[in-house]
Amino acid sequence: MSEFSQRLHDNIRSKQTPALVGIDPRFKQLPSSIVDAARQRGSSEAEIVAAAFEEFCFRLIDIVAPLVPAVKPQAAFFEEWGPPGCAVLERVIRRARTTGLIVICDAKRGDIGSTAEAYARAYLAGSDPHAAVWGADALTVNPYLGRDTLEPFVKVADERGAGIYVLVRTSNPGAGIFQDRITEGQSLYQQVAAVVEELAQETAHGSEYGAVGAVVGATYPKELEQLRGAMPHSPLLVPGYGSQGAGAGEVASAFTSQGLGALINSSRGINFAYNRAPYSERYAPEDWESAVEEATKDMIDDLANSTPAGALRD
Amino acid sequence: MSEFSQRLHDNIRSKQTPALVGIDPRFKQLPSSIVDAARQRGSSEAEIVAAAFEEFCFRLIDIVAPLVPAVKPQAAFFEEWGPPGCAVLERVIRRARTTGLIVICDAKRGDIGSTAEAYARAYLAGSDPHAAVWGADALTVNPYLGRDTLEPFVKVADERGAGIYVLVRTSNPGAGIFQDRITEGQSLYQQVAAVVEELAQETAHGSEYGAVGAVVGATYPKELEQLRGAMPHSPLLVPGYGSQGAGAGEVASAFTSQGLGALINSSRGINFAYNRAPYSERYAPEDWESAVEEATKDMIDDLANSTPAGALRD
Repeated sequence: MSEFSQRLHDNIRSKQTPALVGIDPRFKQLPSSIVDAARQRGSSEAEIVAAAFEEFCFRLIDIVAPLVPAVKPQAAFFEEWGPPGCAVLERVIRRARTTGLIVICDAKRGDIGSTAEAYARAYLAGSDPHAAVWGADALTVNPYLGRDTLEPFVKVADERGAGIYVLVRTSNPGAGIFQDRITEGQSLYQQVAAVVEELAQETAHGSEYGAVGAVVGATYPKELEQLRGAMPHSPLLVPGYGSQGAGAGEVASAFTSQGLGALINSSRGINFAYNRAPYSERYAPEDWESAVEEATKDMIDDLANSTPAGALRD
Repeated sequence: MSEFSQRLHDNIRSKQTPALVGIDPRFKQLPSSIVDAARQRGSSEAEIVAAAFEEFCFRLIDIVAPLVPAVKPQAAFFEEWGPPGCAVLERVIRRARTTGLIVICDAKRGDIGSTAEAYARAYLAGSDPHAAVWGADALTVNPYLGRDTLEPFVKVADERGAGIYVLVRTSNPGAGIFQDRITEGQSLYQQVAAVVEELAQETAHGSEYGAVGAVVGATYPKELEQLRGAMPHSPLLVPGYGSQGAGAGEVASAFTSQGLGALINSSRGINFAYNRAPYSERYAPEDWESAVEEATKDMIDDLANSTPAGALRD
């Protein structure tokens, strides 16, 4: 197996769940206790936000680290606050790595030739967190520019024991406008999937899963089932569960019968559980960490009860 | 016209050229005089690189600011050096804005819903450089996720007098694998172009050019000509001239007869002219700034002599 998929599956087996927690710090939704404390420490708006993000994300990581195999920080919410936000992203990735979590940086990068190489070197640390400035295990990558622009990412991933997740079928309502276009009986997302499977096979080194995964939205369960079959060597990253509307039933087909081969992501539903039903009824805003913990455990149970991921508990 | 296209064309007219200078700091290619000076100022590797990048980019900006209408910093080369690199990108954008240059941040971002909004708020400053943390006039955006994921960028661009450039036909050798797929007589890039033209029209407010431009590689001159016709309201950003192999003849069809509607980019060929023929024969490495200036002027003359951009000098 690729080094990345080996480490990923080791974590999935030891935590007995494929639940992936997105780290999406949105300033307006942070608990007021976090924001108030940050105001004591920072002077400029960017400093206050950065301090609040760091506190929130570090606590979030500490809560979920014993429960789940991996986290997925969303780069956009950090970049939105400029260089101080980027510095927090770097520390959040490092902090998560020290707890043993697999870190998938969701930055959806993509460019040509030596520019793609620069992104790959920057984000794909792989097995040694210090091998890249942003010490992630894996990165999400956009395929629009072509297979030749994925290859620099694949090369660095393979060398460093890292992984990439290529966008195949995204979870947004309008995903199909380009991704569903059919040419000679095959949709664009199916053709991208065929490329992903080839690259995954090449990096599987004769074993089950390669270093090249695929993002496939839970909001399209039929396509998910079909794509699981089309990419047997590719670990899946499945967004769309929870706040975006999909339930455990919709993601069941992402797994092998042993509950392997996929991570199911929830971001807002866990990060901001304290202000969402049913947790908002049970927990006061200052008890947001308990809401995070309960929402994470509920997601884990839901996946165990309604998908093959239950086999991980046997 | 959209505020962005108005400002862009004002600059193109006043500089009498559509030449766009890419800002691609690659540490190994920096002149040794820049690196040596940076070693005096920094202690960690990242600090040295950041100091060298800032010196190099600021000087590059000062040389090209009187000559060209716009610059295009490539985010990957800054991100490669982590938070200190990102901090330099922010200062490079601000410095370029203070000289009156239009700044197109080439970061090829793209994501869904509120995440796309976060990227848009982060990068699209538009007419007020302080309206966003990364104070760019425009941002390059990847369309794979669908039209609904472009709309948050378009909305912010329209509000702030900023622009976006959507990847339509990229300049890499393997661009066609997905972009050329034909469905019902129309290739994927043509369908993306149709969406871009609609969004450009909507943001043109009854005039010529909207806030939504398109990236079309000079390495595919037939497609460039066809796409210029298909997107009359969309300003073009044309990479591929110079180091990537295309000459002025290949980009001539990007322009209106008045020489408007397109920017032609050169990055490495200008940034590192000092170590490339014919400039490497004329200038010593420590005289790299003279090489930058001559290479920029040669590009401007080449475009004026062999494309409709010559009309800008009338």
